[in-house]
Amino acid sequence: MNDWTPRQRSEHFWQTMNTNDWPAVGALLHDDYLLVYPQSGERFRGRENFIALNAQYPAAGAWRFTVHHLIADETEAVTEVGVTDGARTDRVISFFEFRDGRIWRMTEFWPDPFEAAAWRAHLVEPNN
Amino acid sequence: MNDWTPRQRSEHFWQTMNTNDWPAVGALLHDDYLLVYPQSGERFRGRENFIALNAQYPAAGAWRFTVHHLIADETEAVTEVGVTDGARTDRVISFFEFRDGRIWRMTEFWPDPFEAAAWRAHLVEPNN
Repeated sequence: MNDWTPRQRSEHFWQTMNTNDWPAVGALLHDDYLLVYPQSGERFRGRENFIALNAQYPAAGAWRFTVHHLIADETEAVTEVGVTDGARTDRVISFFEFRDGRIWRMTEFWPDPFEAAAWRAHLVEPNN
Repeated sequence: MNDWTPRQRSEHFWQTMNTNDWPAVGALLHDDYLLVYPQSGERFRGRENFIALNAQYPAAGAWRFTVHHLIADETEAVTEVGVTDGARTDRVISFFEFRDGRIWRMTEFWPDPFEAAAWRAHLVEPNN
């Protein structure tokens, strides 16, 4: 996998996530892997904590991940992905950095829905 | 500006945003510009609505935009930007698409802070 591009690596990450085989995903991570959630300040370091985070995440069923958007350059990638367990659907934006042919850093944002603001309603295009 | 790269175009967008000269920013937009907020479903179409959205946004002072992260390929770009009016600071992740040398589509996510989850506290690296 050492000659894979950031695009290929991040696609392969989500393909492997879709198997729900968390140790298989863990094998794609650098020994010094770090996952950061800037919204909460939570930092998950290392392959074992990543596997446990996914294995212990409360779920109604198997997790499915749908890549809506992927942008990559020579060294980094970002994905926008839909996440569902069949009961709820979330969206996650993941920034990937790589080292030694593995995923070294991921910074993830989980934007929740919000109410349309009344003050700007006159500027919004009507829904079809 | 027709030979600019997506990286240059998105950098220039935020530089111009930092002048708070909204019509100058509007000049960078395609006639068929569309700004989408997927979290609320709000869609702002056209240069004039973009200018009005920024001019009418409730603000404590001048807006400052700090680009924390930028990834671009040959056709698209994504930025992660800090936004402050001196009183509050938000974060926005913007996906850019281009057409005819101008910004054609922007899809923006505004991830709010959330509480660290108790169930995974044992997996989180202690703060320094």
